[in-house]
Amino acid sequence: MDAPTLPLSPTSPTWVAVALADLDTVHQDHLHCERKAAQSALSLVRSYPQHAELVLAVARLAHEETAHVVQMAQLLGRRGIAPSLDYGDEYAAALRAECRRPEPARLLDRLLVFALIEARSAERLGLLADALPDPLSAQLYAGLASAEVRHRDVFLELAADLAPTEWQPRLLELAAIESAIVARLPVRARIH
Amino acid sequence: MDAPTLPLSPTSPTWVAVALADLDTVHQDHLHCERKAAQSALSLVRSYPQHAELVLAVARLAHEETAHVVQMAQLLGRRGIAPSLDYGDEYAAALRAECRRPEPARLLDRLLVFALIEARSAERLGLLADALPDPLSAQLYAGLASAEVRHRDVFLELAADLAPTEWQPRLLELAAIESAIVARLPVRARIH
Repeated sequence: MDAPTLPLSPTSPTWVAVALADLDTVHQDHLHCERKAAQSALSLVRSYPQHAELVLAVARLAHEETAHVVQMAQLLGRRGIAPSLDYGDEYAAALRAECRRPEPARLLDRLLVFALIEARSAERLGLLADALPDPLSAQLYAGLASAEVRHRDVFLELAADLAPTEWQPRLLELAAIESAIVARLPVRARIH
Repeated sequence: MDAPTLPLSPTSPTWVAVALADLDTVHQDHLHCERKAAQSALSLVRSYPQHAELVLAVARLAHEETAHVVQMAQLLGRRGIAPSLDYGDEYAAALRAECRRPEPARLLDRLLVFALIEARSAERLGLLADALPDPLSAQLYAGLASAEVRHRDVFLELAADLAPTEWQPRLLELAAIESAIVARLPVRARIH
């Protein structure tokens, strides 16, 4: 597969300042983002077991995401705070609502939506890594950001295998929708 | 915490023969058992984030369970078969139905039920490990069985921390219920 062009709109320049002003909330939110990423990967194992390569790829991905949940729990522990309840994620919910119902379009859309969420997360975790004052946290977020880039590519490769001609035009459609969702949501101390 | 006495009724002696007669089904079922164990652990992170030590312990556990999903997918690949749809799990559903609703009794019961499921899985995976003709599969199941023993103890320790006086009597009650559930379910080529 050629390197995909994934035209992500840039995050609002105010986002980093808002996030830095309430870092505990961002860290608490990100623990749940990693948990939900693991759960989403496992939900694909449940729904599409007949795709043996997909099962292996997303189970490995869930294994990495659960390590990130551990790392976020440890980061919160160092900061002396407990994880919070999940603040919810309108962004991911709005994207999931775009997935078509009939198969195999549904699987293609789920893979592309997960790729877009990973891409957006990678962008924002990278912005945070560059801005975080604490070197340990900055290093952690830089590592998480590069993991999200790899995960984006895992989902894109699975999408390309599933729908060799359809995946790129559909990715462009969903990327435009993703940008519109980001543009209409408020800028908050959350990952999305 | 003292080593808990967990009075598990022994699995029917016919179970191993039934399992060996349809090993592919057992392996396929076990992939989903590991997936569901990871999902159950992550569901505790979602429901009880304020318990920081629990979050860390069960996130680590989910990390191990997802590695086991990968291992089971690889085992199926070596046997030239794909994972199956989830056959469902009446056993786990019947046990979950015993969890009381009000907190903190609900959390205690969930921890004890997960401990019992891990204990039963450990017993049966150990029986299989001793009986499997293929050394690679036998070694894998022996490793999984000892992981389940550790996971049982993680849940029991969390239960003991949560309810120092109540956990042992409640464990005995739930263990008796577990034995009755096992006794009334048919012997099948499944883990439970």
